[in-house]
Amino acid sequence: MSKSKITFLPHGTSIEVADGSTIIQAALDAGVHINASCGGEGVCGKCRVRIEAGAVDGGVTEKLSAEDVRKGYRLACQAMATGDLEVRIPVESAIDAGVLNLPASPRRTARIREFDFEELKDEGLFLAPVEKKCLQLPPPSPQDNLPDVSRLIGQLRLQHDEHRLEADLSVIRKIPEVMRAADFKVTATLVRPVREVGQTRIINVQAGDTSGRSCAIAMDIGTTTIYGQVIDLITGAVLAEHAEFNGQISYGEDVITRIVYAEKPGGLDRIQEAGVATINKILGKIIQRAGVDPQDISTITLAGNTTMTQLLLKINPRHIRRAPYVPASSLYPPLKARDLGMKLDDHVTALVYPVVSSYVGGDIVAGVMGSGIYRSEELTLFMDVGTNAEIVIGNKDWLACAACSAGPAFEGGGLQFGMRAARGAIEDFSLNPKTLEPMIATIGRVRPKGICGSGLINMVAVMFEVGLIDSSGKFDPGLKTPRLRQSGGVNEFVLAWKEETQIDRDITLSEIDIENLIRAKGAIYSGCMTLLTEVGMGIQDIERIVLAGGFGSFVDLDKAMTIGLLPEMDADKVVYLGNGSLLGARMSSLTNRIRRDVADVIRKMTNFELSDTASFMDNYIAALFLPHTDLNQFPRLKARLEARKPFK
Amino acid sequence: MSKSKITFLPHGTSIEVADGSTIIQAALDAGVHINASCGGEGVCGKCRVRIEAGAVDGGVTEKLSAEDVRKGYRLACQAMATGDLEVRIPVESAIDAGVLNLPASPRRTARIREFDFEELKDEGLFLAPVEKKCLQLPPPSPQDNLPDVSRLIGQLRLQHDEHRLEADLSVIRKIPEVMRAADFKVTATLVRPVREVGQTRIINVQAGDTSGRSCAIAMDIGTTTIYGQVIDLITGAVLAEHAEFNGQISYGEDVITRIVYAEKPGGLDRIQEAGVATINKILGKIIQRAGVDPQDISTITLAGNTTMTQLLLKINPRHIRRAPYVPASSLYPPLKARDLGMKLDDHVTALVYPVVSSYVGGDIVAGVMGSGIYRSEELTLFMDVGTNAEIVIGNKDWLACAACSAGPAFEGGGLQFGMRAARGAIEDFSLNPKTLEPMIATIGRVRPKGICGSGLINMVAVMFEVGLIDSSGKFDPGLKTPRLRQSGGVNEFVLAWKEETQIDRDITLSEIDIENLIRAKGAIYSGCMTLLTEVGMGIQDIERIVLAGGFGSFVDLDKAMTIGLLPEMDADKVVYLGNGSLLGARMSSLTNRIRRDVADVIRKMTNFELSDTASFMDNYIAALFLPHTDLNQFPRLKARLEARKPFK
Repeated sequence: MSKSKITFLPHGTSIEVADGSTIIQAALDAGVHINASCGGEGVCGKCRVRIEAGAVDGGVTEKLSAEDVRKGYRLACQAMATGDLEVRIPVESAIDAGVLNLPASPRRTARIREFDFEELKDEGLFLAPVEKKCLQLPPPSPQDNLPDVSRLIGQLRLQHDEHRLEADLSVIRKIPEVMRAADFKVTATLVRPVREVGQTRIINVQAGDTSGRSCAIAMDIGTTTIYGQVIDLITGAVLAEHAEFNGQISYGEDVITRIVYAEKPGGLDRIQEAGVATINKILGKIIQRAGVDPQDISTITLAGNTTMTQLLLKINPRHIRRAPYVPASSLYPPLKARDLGMKLDDHVTALVYPVVSSYVGGDIVAGVMGSGIYRSEELTLFMDVGTNAEIVIGNKDWLACAACSAGPAFEGGGLQFGMRAARGAIEDFSLNPKTLEPMIATIGRVRPKGICGSGLINMVAVMFEVGLIDSSGKFDPGLKTPRLRQSGGVNEFVLAWKEETQIDRDITLSEIDIENLIRAKGAIYSGCMTLLTEVGMGIQDIERIVLAGGFGSFVDLDKAMTIGLLPEMDADKVVYLGNGSLLGARMSSLTNRIRRDVADVIRKMTNFELSDTASFMDNYIAALFLPHTDLNQFPRLKARLEARKPFK
Repeated sequence: MSKSKITFLPHGTSIEVADGSTIIQAALDAGVHINASCGGEGVCGKCRVRIEAGAVDGGVTEKLSAEDVRKGYRLACQAMATGDLEVRIPVESAIDAGVLNLPASPRRTARIREFDFEELKDEGLFLAPVEKKCLQLPPPSPQDNLPDVSRLIGQLRLQHDEHRLEADLSVIRKIPEVMRAADFKVTATLVRPVREVGQTRIINVQAGDTSGRSCAIAMDIGTTTIYGQVIDLITGAVLAEHAEFNGQISYGEDVITRIVYAEKPGGLDRIQEAGVATINKILGKIIQRAGVDPQDISTITLAGNTTMTQLLLKINPRHIRRAPYVPASSLYPPLKARDLGMKLDDHVTALVYPVVSSYVGGDIVAGVMGSGIYRSEELTLFMDVGTNAEIVIGNKDWLACAACSAGPAFEGGGLQFGMRAARGAIEDFSLNPKTLEPMIATIGRVRPKGICGSGLINMVAVMFEVGLIDSSGKFDPGLKTPRLRQSGGVNEFVLAWKEETQIDRDITLSEIDIENLIRAKGAIYSGCMTLLTEVGMGIQDIERIVLAGGFGSFVDLDKAMTIGLLPEMDADKVVYLGNGSLLGARMSSLTNRIRRDVADVIRKMTNFELSDTASFMDNYIAALFLPHTDLNQFPRLKARLEARKPFK
């Protein structure tokens, strides 16, 4: 895809964007404000810009007069770049122009860490977990009537130098017919021991040569969503993936309500079956889409939080929600996938990620394995933010972890107009610091329906930086704008007027919403601080941040640092892992080295129960400000706030 | 029990018997002939003897006149010794007396090998397969909220110096409640790895201290009968045992008909379930009788022939009956007993004895392990005789094995009046060489119904030694006795007249019956010869004989040597193992050393398919005589036959 350079005037800020990008998207990415209320749908008509050089596609609507169009005006949310452009943003006053000339930070999300199988091999991390060996067997005769399995094992030794082999019962059951189906040419699937001393298991035999086809399944068992992938064990590629809402949702939205349900008579069985039903639905789809023979699948690796893990394995989770919050086990033995109810071949082994504690589960351990922080020299902060946020801090020498209840704010919950990151959710935001007119962009560029987590962070950050709210999250009562008002005794800011929305109501952000966000980010930040305190370090020692979970992909890093959710750091030191749980499951599928390392990692990960850690409450209270009571922890923001003063 | 010495006159032969033994039993054991036709029931009245010194209980019947009784006559089959006796057997002529003075061999059965757990320990063969450890755990607290399994494993390390432990899923599932049921006092059941490098598995946890209770199940899966035992793993004792006919009998009497059935659609499932139903019936009984908690049972070890093993594991046995007779596997992995349908706790592991070939199965391997021949310096002949006879020859350096189809003669099958060794079967036999009047004794000492295998051997041996039949098994036509006659062109000998039997027909032994026996013993003897030839040895090199199976307990060793079933050897070199399969299963339950050794034994056991071995047919034809074409292989018999000549 070719790129276009767009220069915004009067700022002179330039940005390179892919051809076909809308001008408003380019402005958002460049940190340039254009008034816009309808989220990008083209109905508010506020985002008029003038194309001064270059050509665009679209952007001509009934909101512009013929004269406007002739002069080069277009709606920024509808006009798409088709080459280099100069775009002038209309200003209403000299002050306005001055504000617009203020250097603003471009939108920066975390660099995505792409998984690379070859890199993993180059790093010496590849230890094949599964290998297929094709061999032509001498047919039995009266002089040579060894048992079929003995013949196979003997020839694997002779032809492939394989030793210490043992065959599963499923292999013994099928070998007589398989051996005789293709003139004694067979392919054996060998599963390597995780530890060197173990035996290699023959888990499958197939007629003919199938050695070029070898797959595994990786799954992330999320409380809300279950993700599955078919992995090619030879190339490392993802052949198919699919996600479904976890069918257990009908027994409760969150882990606590599911635990309560599981404690009822028959509840554990029903809830386990609901989860497995979803797994089977996903398996059916991804196996079909990948076009693989189920016979060629050898393992399924699953990672989930501790409650999801115990429910999957039918382990009563009742003590997870009762002090002192003890899970049944950290490690789980390899199991037959069939025994868990999974519709996979008889030979498929289910490998379940170990957990650290009741609230630092296999999903986080998988994320730690997937991110490689346990192999890194750099002190890394790993965060998986959702309703519960899990934090891991450490490096190759030590790892500390904790979970904190952030509340649902980061998932758009608990806000008056909160919603999940779905079509119509305000995800991006800027504010004209003089007029206090907003630019909002929604997912899907449609009229807004609500606010999602990343949108909320952006909003609060912007509002704080322009001075609309103060460090305790309260609106400046001295500012004059019709958007600032009281409702039921609570101050709120109107983000979109009802005629601009899909919901026929004003969409607002209240001080209560902001307080929820501050509490959520405060819990996470103070969790980090507390872990660091416990190991005798400070927030400034963190050299790298790894974000996992859906949340991390969208969040504007500078904004997250502005509100004090993340410590200040160069954006290129922040890595987005995607679904860390799924990545870890995939890596464990691909190499035994990860499975071997995970046992060490589990031993190394020191779990802190924050509520029982003396310093946590102090850290928490100090973090209930924007960005923090101690502004010196955020020196760049401090500089910007000081630079901002003249405009106040 | 006190002993009495009985001296038979005019022979002067003495024997010590337990008080309460009948005189006829003492005579049988001493090799003294007394005419007797009714099997010991007291109705024929032929077994009159005179008590010349000492006192007896019983033996006074209507068959004796008051005068006879006064003179000291009693019926030998009814009179029981109550102290030392002198018993005179009435003779009708000087010749008769001469015959009776001939030294005859007393009845000698094989010395029974008793299993001794302490001896096994003394020999250094004890490696505990299962150990229970009781421990008091510190209760979890906010400062110490390890997962339950981690707590258990950590404390097992601290309190019991246990390392490299892993917990089964069933333990993870129950540990939360078990730990909290008795104030964190628990007993863990540890299963040791067979090889030193493996991990110790925690297969069970129980509340409180149950470390004094630890059991296992041993089973012999016979084609006809399944035997089960509850074994105390601490003392080695058998706490209960029980046998049932294998419910698979309704799908066929022998392995071939069962294989045929198993090949039909659904047949394998049905026949497997029938076998498991019998196993469950036995389990129910022995567990109840032993009064053990099913929780305290850790393993079930099963041994059976190759067909029984494949049926139990639902492995289609079709190739077992098709040339070149290939079983699916030699070794079987440990399995969950539940997965096979057994009504045992979830944690119970099923260990299945490995097989050598299609016709040398796990029952024989278990017998080899139970008998210890694989550890012995002495060259041993191991035989398990039934419809199929399995032979193992070897010592600690090498083992050769073969199976031969002996036909059903040894189980009383294929004879006109053949029957299993049950009440009413003629089991013992002698013949007055002059009058050709028999002494028969039946199982249960009731009137005869038929002839069982050991009775048949005794009969043919006696008939041959007295010259009633010649070395090709034909009756001497020159002998005059109403018992010798033709029926349908076949010569036969009347063992009991119809009025003396339970079946209201004469019970006879025909030349065809004798021929069947000669074929059966010929197959076995030539099997031994062939194995020896293949390893470059001769029959005289055999230093010890081990008999396994029900057959071996009753067979009169001298008689078996007389007909050429066994090579000639001192009787004290012959050991009767009992149910070798069950003994091997029991030993594997008690010590991992046996489980470790069995893998070597399997590798060492060279299987010979007799039908494909060049020398077998020559050896077989040479063995189709009494005792053999080459009488020099039986020097003692040769001497007796030469000594006999004057009486002919």
